[in-house]
Amino acid sequence: MASSVSSSSLLLSPPPAASKTLKPQLFLPLRALTLRNHSSAGFSSSQARRLPAVVRATVAIEKEMPENERPETFLRAAEPSGAGSSVRARFEKMIREVQDEVCAALEAADGGAKFKEDVWSRPGGGGGISRVLQDGAVWEKAGVNVSVVYGVMPPEAYRAAKGEPGEDNGDTKPGPVPFFAAGISSVLHPKNPFAPTLHFNYRYFETDAPKDTPGAPRQWWFGGGTDLTPAYIFEDDVKHFHTVQKKACDKFDPGFYPRFKKWCDDYFFIKHRGERRGLGGIFFDDLNDCDQEMLLGFSTECAKSVVPAYIPIIQRRKDTPFNEQHKAWQQLRRGRYVEFNLVYDRGTTFGLKTGGRIESILVSLPLTARWEYDHQPEVGSEEWKLLDACINPKEWI
Amino acid sequence: MASSVSSSSLLLSPPPAASKTLKPQLFLPLRALTLRNHSSAGFSSSQARRLPAVVRATVAIEKEMPENERPETFLRAAEPSGAGSSVRARFEKMIREVQDEVCAALEAADGGAKFKEDVWSRPGGGGGISRVLQDGAVWEKAGVNVSVVYGVMPPEAYRAAKGEPGEDNGDTKPGPVPFFAAGISSVLHPKNPFAPTLHFNYRYFETDAPKDTPGAPRQWWFGGGTDLTPAYIFEDDVKHFHTVQKKACDKFDPGFYPRFKKWCDDYFFIKHRGERRGLGGIFFDDLNDCDQEMLLGFSTECAKSVVPAYIPIIQRRKDTPFNEQHKAWQQLRRGRYVEFNLVYDRGTTFGLKTGGRIESILVSLPLTARWEYDHQPEVGSEEWKLLDACINPKEWI
Repeated sequence: MASSVSSSSLLLSPPPAASKTLKPQLFLPLRALTLRNHSSAGFSSSQARRLPAVVRATVAIEKEMPENERPETFLRAAEPSGAGSSVRARFEKMIREVQDEVCAALEAADGGAKFKEDVWSRPGGGGGISRVLQDGAVWEKAGVNVSVVYGVMPPEAYRAAKGEPGEDNGDTKPGPVPFFAAGISSVLHPKNPFAPTLHFNYRYFETDAPKDTPGAPRQWWFGGGTDLTPAYIFEDDVKHFHTVQKKACDKFDPGFYPRFKKWCDDYFFIKHRGERRGLGGIFFDDLNDCDQEMLLGFSTECAKSVVPAYIPIIQRRKDTPFNEQHKAWQQLRRGRYVEFNLVYDRGTTFGLKTGGRIESILVSLPLTARWEYDHQPEVGSEEWKLLDACINPKEWI
Repeated sequence: MASSVSSSSLLLSPPPAASKTLKPQLFLPLRALTLRNHSSAGFSSSQARRLPAVVRATVAIEKEMPENERPETFLRAAEPSGAGSSVRARFEKMIREVQDEVCAALEAADGGAKFKEDVWSRPGGGGGISRVLQDGAVWEKAGVNVSVVYGVMPPEAYRAAKGEPGEDNGDTKPGPVPFFAAGISSVLHPKNPFAPTLHFNYRYFETDAPKDTPGAPRQWWFGGGTDLTPAYIFEDDVKHFHTVQKKACDKFDPGFYPRFKKWCDDYFFIKHRGERRGLGGIFFDDLNDCDQEMLLGFSTECAKSVVPAYIPIIQRRKDTPFNEQHKAWQQLRRGRYVEFNLVYDRGTTFGLKTGGRIESILVSLPLTARWEYDHQPEVGSEEWKLLDACINPKEWI
């Protein structure tokens, strides 16, 4: 089944396409931002909204344009611009601050390499900032992207989002429903096989009331997560990582960490292998069952926890001596990363099928990967321990 | 949409799973062998049978068992065993001969490395022989697999195959319909970036009349193809390759080469890149619009043409000096190969989703691959020429 989602890669920002002979079709993966296909996802959440899989819609949007400078905001001129004025505005401010913080921390850890930046905008409003650091001293490939996009949903998708699939209740005239989506998305692949890969993604989604139906309810939700994918287990590292996630969660709800930890284990499942791609973290989607301000605060806390959760691990492992076998095993695990992203990740698969900008979507793939026929790590080896933990998820704290 | 098909990887033979902690579910991808999902495929054929996409069926089959010896035939005891007695028997004989010929030629070209063989069978009948040569002098990874499998289709799939979707015409009582599928499937990835990757696959499919409906029509069809995926274009090589394909086709029908060359260009299309994975060859599927004996002869001719089409190219290119840039470009093209196989190849994607044996399905992936952010070959360079030919398919002869 086609996947579909409010997932990470959708919010990877598309910098200008430079292709000469290709004419990429640009579509905004609308359903991806609003609906979920339950059958294709490996996870479930009792509280996530359940929307019918029949609503499938994409909407053509304008081609993105390269920009020479980062604008102060990607919000439309009509948006209130004062700090704290709207969740949109504060969410954009937050993800851009986190992009700066994370990139600064990654450059500092690398000790020399710098991010390459692409800024883009769309004529109708919105845009993004893509940053990629490739082949540094520490990083094989690191992408940190923010985007702020606007679009229009067909009325049936809006009705579905309101929980009224197939109905027209008379209050809402059929008509396009504007929406807003903003997010930060990042995948960080280090070179050293003892230094883990990190992925994080935080996003916020809103629908506006249609212009001709003032007072119609507005939908909003948050999604995101941070997860760790090592090739070798250092228990201290994994415990530290999960502890930081738990602390961020516990500040808001003691039920968040166990719920989002399990959601993460369920989501990053490579079904055909019967194993997870890594050692998890937290993951949530379509979250709107709590106070909106509280969830903005929670997303902010999680995103601001990326640097303290990850950089200390990189500092400890980036210079660990390794041999060819260690590197080959890391490369095999990178192969699994590719399998997950191309076959299961709902954002990636939806982005590929709907014509998103390919380089932005696939910046999550590692620089290098490997597939050996029928590789089986020796029972009890360090490689076997990692595989076992990917097959049988553990409670790390 | 999920893909589905009578495609290559389905017929890769599943040798014994050695996993300790995994409990793989084994399903025979039945629909994959019988029906096509038109919306997901990038090709069309006016003469291929068109079956409704609503018929989706998989059927659990027995787990494969390792065997110590290759049996003389994987056909059931009840099958007539005399040479030439049935298309099934002659097709099995042909693919096993071709497996031997191709493996012998590959080992000879490598000059030292040997194929590792796994033989397997299923208690209910059928089995296969998987051969993999990894990390040789010439070959990075080469897999050559044959399989002969039996299964049972649900009646609605059988009715669909007979062109009577949703109907019960009274002549056929609803009931399971036995089928038979045999094929050879191979992907050959050389180390040298000037030596091209080759894929070929030939397969034959039959349904039996149900036991309680003697005289009911029997369905059969052929599928397959051979295609070349270089990282650099040597016109002589590509012309030689296509010329051998054309000669094989022309022996049977002057319309075959143009028809199957276009089908190949259409099938191996990486939609999200707007480019083909390589320089094509021939591809056909669901072929039953000619005399059955003629198509058996045609498939045999094509399969027997693999060695003369490919080995001379390998001999010419296997020792060509290369530098790091050449290797990196080959690795980027390997990344495209991975993208095609994991995202589009109908056999692979169906196999992954229905629980086929993963190592057999993914033996087609290269040992190593690479993804660089936004890589754009310099206009006019050798890399650009290859990319251009993948974007704009050419007539090579």
